Amino acid sequence: MTDKLLNSRDMDFLLYEFLDTEVLLQRPRYHDHSREVFTATLETAYIIAEKYFANHNAKGDANEPQYDGETITMIPETQAAWDAFAEAGFMAAHYDFEEGGLQMPEIILRAAMAYISAANIATAGYPFLTLGAAGLIHSFGTEEQKQKFLLPMMDGRFTGTMALTESGQGSALADIKTTATPNEDGTYHIKGQKMFISAGDHTLTDNIIHMVLAKIKGAPDGVKGISLFIVPKVLVKDDGSLGECNDVKLSGLLHKMGYHNTTSTVLNFGEKEGAVGYLIGEAHKGLSYMFQMMNEARIGVGSGAAVLAYQGYLHSLSYARERPQGRHPSNKDPSSKQIAIIEHADVRRMLLIQKAYSEGALALCLYASSLVEDTRTADTEEEKQQAGLLLDILTPVVKSWPSKYGCLSNDLAIQVFGGSGYIREYPVEQLYRDQRLNPIHEGTEAIQGLDLLGRKIPMAQGAGFELFKHKVRHTLEAAQKTSLQHKFIQPIDQALDRLDQVTDNLLPMVKSDADRGLSNATLYLDFFGRIVMSWIWLRQAVVAANALGQDDSLTKPEEDFYRGKLQAAIFYIEWELPQTVLQAKLLLDNNSICFDMQDEWFGEA
Amino acid sequence: MTDKLLNSRDMDFLLYEFLDTEVLLQRPRYHDHSREVFTATLETAYIIAEKYFANHNAKGDANEPQYDGETITMIPETQAAWDAFAEAGFMAAHYDFEEGGLQMPEIILRAAMAYISAANIATAGYPFLTLGAAGLIHSFGTEEQKQKFLLPMMDGRFTGTMALTESGQGSALADIKTTATPNEDGTYHIKGQKMFISAGDHTLTDNIIHMVLAKIKGAPDGVKGISLFIVPKVLVKDDGSLGECNDVKLSGLLHKMGYHNTTSTVLNFGEKEGAVGYLIGEAHKGLSYMFQMMNEARIGVGSGAAVLAYQGYLHSLSYARERPQGRHPSNKDPSSKQIAIIEHADVRRMLLIQKAYSEGALALCLYASSLVEDTRTADTEEEKQQAGLLLDILTPVVKSWPSKYGCLSNDLAIQVFGGSGYIREYPVEQLYRDQRLNPIHEGTEAIQGLDLLGRKIPMAQGAGFELFKHKVRHTLEAAQKTSLQHKFIQPIDQALDRLDQVTDNLLPMVKSDADRGLSNATLYLDFFGRIVMSWIWLRQAVVAANALGQDDSLTKPEEDFYRGKLQAAIFYIEWELPQTVLQAKLLLDNNSICFDMQDEWFGEA
Repeated sequence: MTDKLLNSRDMDFLLYEFLDTEVLLQRPRYHDHSREVFTATLETAYIIAEKYFANHNAKGDANEPQYDGETITMIPETQAAWDAFAEAGFMAAHYDFEEGGLQMPEIILRAAMAYISAANIATAGYPFLTLGAAGLIHSFGTEEQKQKFLLPMMDGRFTGTMALTESGQGSALADIKTTATPNEDGTYHIKGQKMFISAGDHTLTDNIIHMVLAKIKGAPDGVKGISLFIVPKVLVKDDGSLGECNDVKLSGLLHKMGYHNTTSTVLNFGEKEGAVGYLIGEAHKGLSYMFQMMNEARIGVGSGAAVLAYQGYLHSLSYARERPQGRHPSNKDPSSKQIAIIEHADVRRMLLIQKAYSEGALALCLYASSLVEDTRTADTEEEKQQAGLLLDILTPVVKSWPSKYGCLSNDLAIQVFGGSGYIREYPVEQLYRDQRLNPIHEGTEAIQGLDLLGRKIPMAQGAGFELFKHKVRHTLEAAQKTSLQHKFIQPIDQALDRLDQVTDNLLPMVKSDADRGLSNATLYLDFFGRIVMSWIWLRQAVVAANALGQDDSLTKPEEDFYRGKLQAAIFYIEWELPQTVLQAKLLLDNNSICFDMQDEWFGEA
Repeated sequence: MTDKLLNSRDMDFLLYEFLDTEVLLQRPRYHDHSREVFTATLETAYIIAEKYFANHNAKGDANEPQYDGETITMIPETQAAWDAFAEAGFMAAHYDFEEGGLQMPEIILRAAMAYISAANIATAGYPFLTLGAAGLIHSFGTEEQKQKFLLPMMDGRFTGTMALTESGQGSALADIKTTATPNEDGTYHIKGQKMFISAGDHTLTDNIIHMVLAKIKGAPDGVKGISLFIVPKVLVKDDGSLGECNDVKLSGLLHKMGYHNTTSTVLNFGEKEGAVGYLIGEAHKGLSYMFQMMNEARIGVGSGAAVLAYQGYLHSLSYARERPQGRHPSNKDPSSKQIAIIEHADVRRMLLIQKAYSEGALALCLYASSLVEDTRTADTEEEKQQAGLLLDILTPVVKSWPSKYGCLSNDLAIQVFGGSGYIREYPVEQLYRDQRLNPIHEGTEAIQGLDLLGRKIPMAQGAGFELFKHKVRHTLEAAQKTSLQHKFIQPIDQALDRLDQVTDNLLPMVKSDADRGLSNATLYLDFFGRIVMSWIWLRQAVVAANALGQDDSLTKPEEDFYRGKLQAAIFYIEWELPQTVLQAKLLLDNNSICFDMQDEWFGEA
């Protein structure tokens, strides 16, 4: 394995040192596996990523799918990528052997997907969305629905989408207008327009299975009246063969700043008699089904953001080592040789920030995946429940932190390249454009902040919140047993106190005056996120300190690797965590400068 | 005038309340002008901006110039824009009447250019670069050079470029390789390749005048051996008519993330016998000439960044008022009407940040332009000198702050639009891409930081630095005489002390150990920039407080306008200035986490 897509030494570190993925082998579901099987799975993903996804990342960006009103045209490499991914069994890998799957753990598949996304986030969109749609049918569909729709998705014959958004409501799902009218045969007729539907139409597969949110006529107002439907592009006969086209029409493609090779569509359901839809589970419970998928979809977005940042980091690191320019400020001899720009202090700063952001974001996402795994296969019910509590409270950060800091990270990748970073002749400008989607889809920053402070923190009488702090304290104790200096430990200890103060101050107001109490929720999200990430970095520092302390026989590259982890950790703790002091002040003061701003004071637009 | 490009009420405020532009009319150079003339000039700029520049901003982005190896193809609207700009006299407007100019003040032309750039930053590149090149010939050229090259630029027949950068040196001008060999007739033969030359070739004019940095054979090493040459694309005969093509060949176009309609070129000088070049001023003094233009070019970049941010702010403000979505958190009734998203606290936050950044950046740039004006036309030599000192110390901030925070501002414009912000069907994604160039060209963030801390702060025994602090203290005193609360004043007062401590700590090290002393110069730049911007906002707040306090008869829109200014000022002081506390800590500690990071610790790329 080379290190072009992600640093595979780091991936090993994250899976087997930072996390204890090998412990999964002791769980009954994975008795037939071994670390070698996990490694082989990642190697397969790496090879497919490099051969079938990386090969057309720039080409897909330069030649986005076209729609002439009749046909979509896509570059042919997309088809080859889809086929290779499905043929390797990745579409079914997470299902049990008896379902035709490979019974692979969530975290290994998340790591595999990280390679695919690092290679080509846009083409990775087709498997990503299909996995999500398939998961819904797997969890909530009937046996018949699974036979008809899930099996062809598992073997790559059908793709899938998540059709939630409409032009009139955006993030506010309560207000969707798509209707479902029951037919006598138990099916429904779906009518309405969905927008921003990624992979909503394309040429990869004969059929596309849309998971559509709609309201059955007479349903309650708001989110309690939303149902979930399977709406295939082409109707599937009982024998599994394709029948007539369903009443689903591509209205047009949207043209995104990045992710060019993932089609973004406006879909009209029911321009004629209505598109045939199949209710999933019970009526009016659609949103709760969707929410059960949301944690994973949000880890998926966070993980995609992490690897885009990681790609920018690796590209700019490599460039900084090769590119000669200028001299140290102390060198006044213009005839002396130019130095590689990595020698410049500010370039090192930009690389170190990228390292802290990208490796930190990937660590966070893999940790979250390990929690998803634990909710399913941990040894005891209590462990499963605890993993669920932690996952719930961390999910807003897992979604938003890599997205926000991924954008900043990719910004720095451009800056390291200088003028070359801004032109399409180099790869980092595409990463910057691709990355910008991530703070929007699967819930904007604001939505994540409201979810965290309004819902996840108070949930279960604060059990998740307490558990999180307990976990951090546990790591602080572990850190005290290493050679890590006080400066790694004390700032996080103090930040935990700060977190308590701020949260104790806000929660009563969230209850008594929700509008005001939640008005700085996005700030709280960043505040909380910085503490989470300091913890993630401390955990990595503990491993590194132990490795450096216990083993005199480390090779030079190994020693360098761990020293790099320590340096990134202390960077994060000294340069980024202290922001929480200022944020805490604003939050403790219930600063209302933004809340008090009046529409008219903005003047004319 | 409508307010589509910039808020013209704000422009009036900045020119005539925040600044005292009317005082210029008392200076001899402007005796023949009046405020009405200034206003008419801006109205003309506005009309041209709207009619000839805004009309093809999106079209130029979607249809960038093409080069087939022979011919460049551009959208025809570009030509119409160039012609309209030149025909209105803007190419010559800053020159004296007897030179054929309009004797317009710098600040009025900067404001006029702000409208043009707001309408279409890419097409504005052609006039922007021509003005810069013409200015060099105007300041340092011979009468013959002015006749031959400057006059046709002033009337729009020729365009100009600044040809500094080469692929091998980037920001490090000391290492340019382009050579100049003297000919017997006093001309030179220029050989070398220049890269990233904006507007380096196009179809707008028959001739393009390149201002080329090159080294005469035998010149000293480094920046002390750089000379400046006029190198026309087409040779100009003594009678002013065009002769043969010069030996300047377009090697190819570069493809930028934004600014699509400004060609970015690689130019080969002297593929054959050598391109004919005319030395400007004395040999080996080229860089000092260039530096005299640099202040203005850097204000130009800052100003372009400011108006891109401003555009994003206005677009997102308008969208936020029109777009209904969701309800307040306290409203649990899903059947109630949706509210406009400007009602959401987080959207107000994103708009208020954009207001603080974009209006603040424009205020800063116009203030800097007023200093440029004062260096030329202030009443006394002392005033001219003081303006120069202030301008020198502020220029790194004027270049970098609007660029950096402009990117963040345009990022928030997208976020306000949500998914729509990310697609090309709406204008804010182009602004985001256009903006990203600004932290790079005319000196990266790092270059500005080194210039500030290594050169501008210690310059003239710290006279500029002292003068700046004196100016801030003056505003603090003025603020104390208004109704502005303590919270506006005290944080800035304290920040000034912080600035002294940090600077006193760093300067000795900059002298004794430049590499270490300058290693956090980019951080110092941001630290200093936040203090500058707090002052810029306090100055605006003082005007607003006086207006609100003294005049009971203000109309509601006027009152709203000033309240908006106060709110943006206090936002900046409470949310953004406090960062300087943390930055000061890192700088006082001589934090060396980035400086100490080792190449090998980054691992494999």
